[in-house]
Amino acid sequence: MTHASPLTIGQLLRTPLANTPGQEIIHADVMRYSYAGLWQRIRRLGAALTDLGVGAGSVVAVLDWDSHRYLECFFAVPMLGAVLHTVNVRLAPEQVLYTINHAADEVILVHEDFLPLIGAIAARIIRPVRFVLLQDRPGPAATALPLAGEYEGLLAASDGAFRFPELDENTRATLFYTTGTTGDPKGVTFTHRQIVLHTLAVIAAVGPVPGMGGLHRADVYMPITPLFHVHAWGFPYVATLLGLKQVYPGRYDPERLLALIAAHGVTFSHCVPTILNMLLGARTAEATDLSRWKVIIGGAALPAGLAERALARGIDIHAAYGMSETCPLLTAADMTASIAAPDGLALRCATGKAAPLVELEIVGADMAPLPHDGIATGEVVARAPWLTAGYLNDPSGSDSLWAGGWLHTGDVGAIDPAGTLVLSDRLKDVIKSGGEWISSLHLETVVSRCDGLAETAAIGLPDAEWGERPCLLAVLRPGADRAAVEAAMRAAIDAAIGAGTLSKWARPGRIEWCDSLPKTSVGKLDKRAMRAMVAKS
Amino acid sequence: MTHASPLTIGQLLRTPLANTPGQEIIHADVMRYSYAGLWQRIRRLGAALTDLGVGAGSVVAVLDWDSHRYLECFFAVPMLGAVLHTVNVRLAPEQVLYTINHAADEVILVHEDFLPLIGAIAARIIRPVRFVLLQDRPGPAATALPLAGEYEGLLAASDGAFRFPELDENTRATLFYTTGTTGDPKGVTFTHRQIVLHTLAVIAAVGPVPGMGGLHRADVYMPITPLFHVHAWGFPYVATLLGLKQVYPGRYDPERLLALIAAHGVTFSHCVPTILNMLLGARTAEATDLSRWKVIIGGAALPAGLAERALARGIDIHAAYGMSETCPLLTAADMTASIAAPDGLALRCATGKAAPLVELEIVGADMAPLPHDGIATGEVVARAPWLTAGYLNDPSGSDSLWAGGWLHTGDVGAIDPAGTLVLSDRLKDVIKSGGEWISSLHLETVVSRCDGLAETAAIGLPDAEWGERPCLLAVLRPGADRAAVEAAMRAAIDAAIGAGTLSKWARPGRIEWCDSLPKTSVGKLDKRAMRAMVAKS
Repeated sequence: MTHASPLTIGQLLRTPLANTPGQEIIHADVMRYSYAGLWQRIRRLGAALTDLGVGAGSVVAVLDWDSHRYLECFFAVPMLGAVLHTVNVRLAPEQVLYTINHAADEVILVHEDFLPLIGAIAARIIRPVRFVLLQDRPGPAATALPLAGEYEGLLAASDGAFRFPELDENTRATLFYTTGTTGDPKGVTFTHRQIVLHTLAVIAAVGPVPGMGGLHRADVYMPITPLFHVHAWGFPYVATLLGLKQVYPGRYDPERLLALIAAHGVTFSHCVPTILNMLLGARTAEATDLSRWKVIIGGAALPAGLAERALARGIDIHAAYGMSETCPLLTAADMTASIAAPDGLALRCATGKAAPLVELEIVGADMAPLPHDGIATGEVVARAPWLTAGYLNDPSGSDSLWAGGWLHTGDVGAIDPAGTLVLSDRLKDVIKSGGEWISSLHLETVVSRCDGLAETAAIGLPDAEWGERPCLLAVLRPGADRAAVEAAMRAAIDAAIGAGTLSKWARPGRIEWCDSLPKTSVGKLDKRAMRAMVAKS
Repeated sequence: MTHASPLTIGQLLRTPLANTPGQEIIHADVMRYSYAGLWQRIRRLGAALTDLGVGAGSVVAVLDWDSHRYLECFFAVPMLGAVLHTVNVRLAPEQVLYTINHAADEVILVHEDFLPLIGAIAARIIRPVRFVLLQDRPGPAATALPLAGEYEGLLAASDGAFRFPELDENTRATLFYTTGTTGDPKGVTFTHRQIVLHTLAVIAAVGPVPGMGGLHRADVYMPITPLFHVHAWGFPYVATLLGLKQVYPGRYDPERLLALIAAHGVTFSHCVPTILNMLLGARTAEATDLSRWKVIIGGAALPAGLAERALARGIDIHAAYGMSETCPLLTAADMTASIAAPDGLALRCATGKAAPLVELEIVGADMAPLPHDGIATGEVVARAPWLTAGYLNDPSGSDSLWAGGWLHTGDVGAIDPAGTLVLSDRLKDVIKSGGEWISSLHLETVVSRCDGLAETAAIGLPDAEWGERPCLLAVLRPGADRAAVEAAMRAAIDAAIGAGTLSKWARPGRIEWCDSLPKTSVGKLDKRAMRAMVAKS
């Protein structure tokens, strides 16, 4: 009787348990155990959740820092046939409430640091919910929530011989919410099959790398992307399948992250540029040996200046690209590019090349693929076996995401003949003038070095003849001369057009001076608000 | 509309075509082109085969040396929804005929070297077949076969814009035949999904390796396992997905293989021990720089002596294990083990550790898993998402293969606590005495160093009390004294039992002297014949 070995998350544990059962998993100074111990605890957690009524299709939410508990939930919850809802603890309480109700959570595992957050919204959770307390140190918790138990206590009382059910590989495994500048958060889900294939593809993308670059079995892994962010970009599953030593840092604190790197010999991490910037600027950074550390940067473009600072510290740094809806891996930059080479830094900072099994195209509004010549610019669309099939209970959002049979990233860029994608804008920010796409980022970069300019942003304004025409919003530095700065900006634009690096269509008709630029709650430029502001002026 | 990106062989081409379109593929001195050229030719081959009537479910056979044509067939035939039958050209003509009829081949691509073979059996091929001639140099072919065309001519006349159909990932992709010591060849088949998952798993097994070991994107690949042997162990698919420079050697000739390694900077190959032995002994071996060459040994155990010779030449060598029915990867030995370490050589020569997603157990007759203690010995059984579902049109053979829901390898071994499998015997050769399993290989090894002993083999003979009892067959060296040699053999056995390395049940009751040991047509010891021989004596 053939056994088909469906692609389920539980399968990711088999090889490390057989081959590296003694390898360590560490949660800062809270917990330390072997893979064999991890498996024991996953089985106990499976038993404990079953006792709480969790079964096939149940949704179990987690609000926690990056902990050993979270890793255990990454496995135990989906292995029950239940769905792991990784709650973004940085959302506003009303948004957290929305996601809990939308997800239909039945059990919520909540770290004591988030008891006030949950306490404030608990009365408005629609369905009956059972709460499990997560603590780094045992002790009473100050909460009026009715607790079904405390995590370590529940595990200790549960059956270490618990057996998980066999699952279909297309069973939903995970759920989390992504927020845009408008509308309610959207639920993004992935199946067991998608997560297993993503795990293998990440290894195929960053594993077979010559020299000491890339990810390999001797690495020590520590995430610095929260586990609620697209499963920490899938790396906890990757690290587990490869049997790596893993270090979970708890709540992020730059000094503590550096101390963990030093104490446990961490060699592989991933984070957004902001976090790396904070780490490099921390008090103990200079004294910490970072020369064995490899870092993948995602979530935002890797600025060349940050890459240079990191490389100067001996950090092997490169960019990768993806989004919540893509699990997230789509591309990875060249991990082996030498910074001694003329384009080495650019290759490490580029959005990167398509990972194995990823189909990547840039398309115009008609969905026709544009040439990979490094010049033609269009929306980045993708196919791969691990992209989300759509948003939870949102057929129209799902249809837009997959319009024309390709997943729309909402990013705009060009692909060169060697397959390297370079992003130039968000689709919603690109300026569409007379059939040409003008990158707002590119226009901003051209003028950004003008003395006396504090801040600038390029937006498209409706134009009867051209569809849109570019407009620059600008903020003057205190004491600067507006006319002189504007003249310098126009000269920089003319120079770029003259040099052929900027299209002549990109010359802005207007430069609008204002006191400050509108920003979103997370500090990003709010171009929607800018367009409204300029339209009214 | 979501696109699910099924796991099909065509998908393996996407990333290399986008990222490394200019990378080279070389067939010795016959052909040299880029990946972009490969894709053009695959499309033309798809069109040409379609014109010959090939469609979904058709079977296309290939008889060729390791060529660019074979690589093209690896993709074009399955991408049509047809089945690629890779014919073992070393089989006896009657067996080739059997497999052609059993597979129901509709088109046969045959290299001119094999025209005599096919010519001799063509009249007895049951179904109508169209023949396509494969040649390394254009010219007339001496054959009475009715040819539908010559490969290069057909491609030149075909449509380079041909579009392949979308396929279900469970479509059968490949078929080949495996031969045992008895019975007809058995047809082993794999689906698109299985081959894609095997490709990813091979990368996950041999890619993320620290240092320069393992397989990575800067490698230059050359198979030295024929492409008809389990798709050259799947490596042409791996090399293509990774966008490696590939070198196909044509017919194997030691001097020419060495010249190709030198000329093209080959850094990664795989072969059976015999071939490596031939290469190292070739006239030009000493003058060839092999210090950048990594070699995976499979198909038979890697002898420590051969590994030492290879390592002394700078070759990064290690063993891997699998079989036709397993696509073939099951385990790989430690690629990073230092030979300076006490167990380094043993680790490199070991059968190895389970590859990612492979479940490996050793079981007794009751199918209960035995402990991984390095001592308990049982049959190796496996599960993985890429194991064949069964033999073509052979339900009872398929049932035996998958008895109890695990694929039976027919190999016997032990797994240690670090997951390392060490094989000790074939199941059919193991001696089952009083509930204990005695390894025939182990018993042979113990006595093998006795002076005067030319050859020896251990077999089990039926025994009313114990089930089986071990018996040694032995061949005396000319001029040696039989009584003295037998005394030395018995002393060696007693010493091993005394040292605790051999079970006391393993002491043979009889030592049977004979003039020579029966062997199979491929030179392996024929223990079935030995048992019959001794039973009659």
